[in-house]
Amino acid sequence: MPTSEFSLIERYFAAQRFQRPDVALGIGDDCALLLPPAGQQLAATVDTLVAEVHFFAGADPEGIGHKALAVNLSDLAAMGATPAWATLALTLPQVDEDWLAAFCRGLFALADRHGVQLIGGDTTHGSTTVITIQAHGFVPPSQALRRDGARPGDDLYVTGTPGDAGLALAAAFGKAAIAAHHERYVRARLERPEPRLAPGLALRGVASAAIDVSDGLAQDLGHILERSRVGARLEVERLPLSPALATSLDREAAAVTALTGGDDYELCFTVPPERTVQLERSAAEWDCRCTRIGVITAEPGLRLTRADGSALHLDRWGYNHFG
Amino acid sequence: MPTSEFSLIERYFAAQRFQRPDVALGIGDDCALLLPPAGQQLAATVDTLVAEVHFFAGADPEGIGHKALAVNLSDLAAMGATPAWATLALTLPQVDEDWLAAFCRGLFALADRHGVQLIGGDTTHGSTTVITIQAHGFVPPSQALRRDGARPGDDLYVTGTPGDAGLALAAAFGKAAIAAHHERYVRARLERPEPRLAPGLALRGVASAAIDVSDGLAQDLGHILERSRVGARLEVERLPLSPALATSLDREAAAVTALTGGDDYELCFTVPPERTVQLERSAAEWDCRCTRIGVITAEPGLRLTRADGSALHLDRWGYNHFG
Repeated sequence: MPTSEFSLIERYFAAQRFQRPDVALGIGDDCALLLPPAGQQLAATVDTLVAEVHFFAGADPEGIGHKALAVNLSDLAAMGATPAWATLALTLPQVDEDWLAAFCRGLFALADRHGVQLIGGDTTHGSTTVITIQAHGFVPPSQALRRDGARPGDDLYVTGTPGDAGLALAAAFGKAAIAAHHERYVRARLERPEPRLAPGLALRGVASAAIDVSDGLAQDLGHILERSRVGARLEVERLPLSPALATSLDREAAAVTALTGGDDYELCFTVPPERTVQLERSAAEWDCRCTRIGVITAEPGLRLTRADGSALHLDRWGYNHFG
Repeated sequence: MPTSEFSLIERYFAAQRFQRPDVALGIGDDCALLLPPAGQQLAATVDTLVAEVHFFAGADPEGIGHKALAVNLSDLAAMGATPAWATLALTLPQVDEDWLAAFCRGLFALADRHGVQLIGGDTTHGSTTVITIQAHGFVPPSQALRRDGARPGDDLYVTGTPGDAGLALAAAFGKAAIAAHHERYVRARLERPEPRLAPGLALRGVASAAIDVSDGLAQDLGHILERSRVGARLEVERLPLSPALATSLDREAAAVTALTGGDDYELCFTVPPERTVQLERSAAEWDCRCTRIGVITAEPGLRLTRADGSALHLDRWGYNHFG
């Protein structure tokens, strides 16, 4: 049988030590064979990272491996699902063993931490690096956090401090200056986002709607509003800004970055008033902030209000691939 | 909310009329929510097509849509799985509505025919068109057609007429001439492969091992031999050659094309002697040929023997992305 760099790649991906008992057959056949748990819904999501669009081609490959999985786990978190399995479709211009080893280190470190097994993939040749991961998880029936359940009067929340990744990008393009002691934090927020899986699970039976913030808080909140056929009033001064963001930009520019920056992988969600006490008790145990930033309204559209009552208008709402 | 070419794409992909009752939530949220049937294993596979590697960028987009799904359904067929759900990750250099409409026509025509619902995806911008589909299906426990079950003495079979797609590629590169009345057939074999789903289902409980032929019969058979820790003797004159292949190349070149051409999406499988009668009775009802081409041996390696008993040696075994 011929050996090739191709089989070398397969060996890298088949090297994960962590194995799940619900994987009957993993990497190495025409299909993986999986044993979904009885009585649960299967949640499936797919996300692609493209070199020079989603990451700099020269970026740390360990971070790229982390992020390629993290953005998918973030979708599972936003659905309230427990992660289980992932596949990897990887298109590469050439085989660079050091790159692959570091990529797998980043990927598997995050996968192991959240109990995710890589169960299959496809490796192809192409002129640009393109990474597509599909992640699967489980959620009990009627407990999934959908986008269409927000109701007027629900409180509006966000986890963490949105805008940090947007600040990192702005700095990379020379449009913002970050104090030296914030640089490492801000870069980690862009390159190593932490999927909010524990908050996602805690929101089962609590949140009425949820989404993960990948293209900008304003734009992604817009998807909740559209699918739920409601509007929202977001109080700009309530936006939880990190010290890095608050000190790198003026107040309004920082708020706009938090609203439109993208790449945050925080959760934006709504909670009916009768469950906000339960939420805030739960959130006290999370390893990230949880901040009420506004309220859902019957009137459609998103209104951004400053502390003085004036309206903030955005030139753009978030990231658009073909804008 | 901003509208964009992005949402236009989503609308194309959300336009499939066929809907499955086991999809609780399809395109349009952070995850799809699926209801796997109780008591079945879930089969999952992922395959990528890259422009100018797997298809000519100027090729008919309807055919590209067909093929992107077909190569995945072929993996489900090779596992003996019933297809159910698919996701689509599509990286595009620009949004061309005519291209997208034709791509979706080809994709959905094949999906509808096999009861497959598109349940999610991701559309991104990149310099090259890259299409990754993940397909899911179901198979009863212990009935999946794995690669590792071939035993010495099992008969070796292939569906259809391998080599036709290889001939089409050779002709496209000016390395073979095809008679005019064969051109349409040969091109269809390359651009519109038919996944062998009905044969795959019929092989449950009959075949001891199976694989789909994507990178060349000799190379893919090699995966069965390696995983099953056996060898095979393949009788070259038994290879089922289409009239197009048999008349376009000399006898030996035609056989080499059938063995190494790739892109066939036929099934190569093994059957224990006590089940060959059952197989041949079943295969009489398939809409493709089913031909015994050799036998599994205890001695490792693949031996290709001509009618006169001499050995055929191959310079290359099939396609290697990084060869």
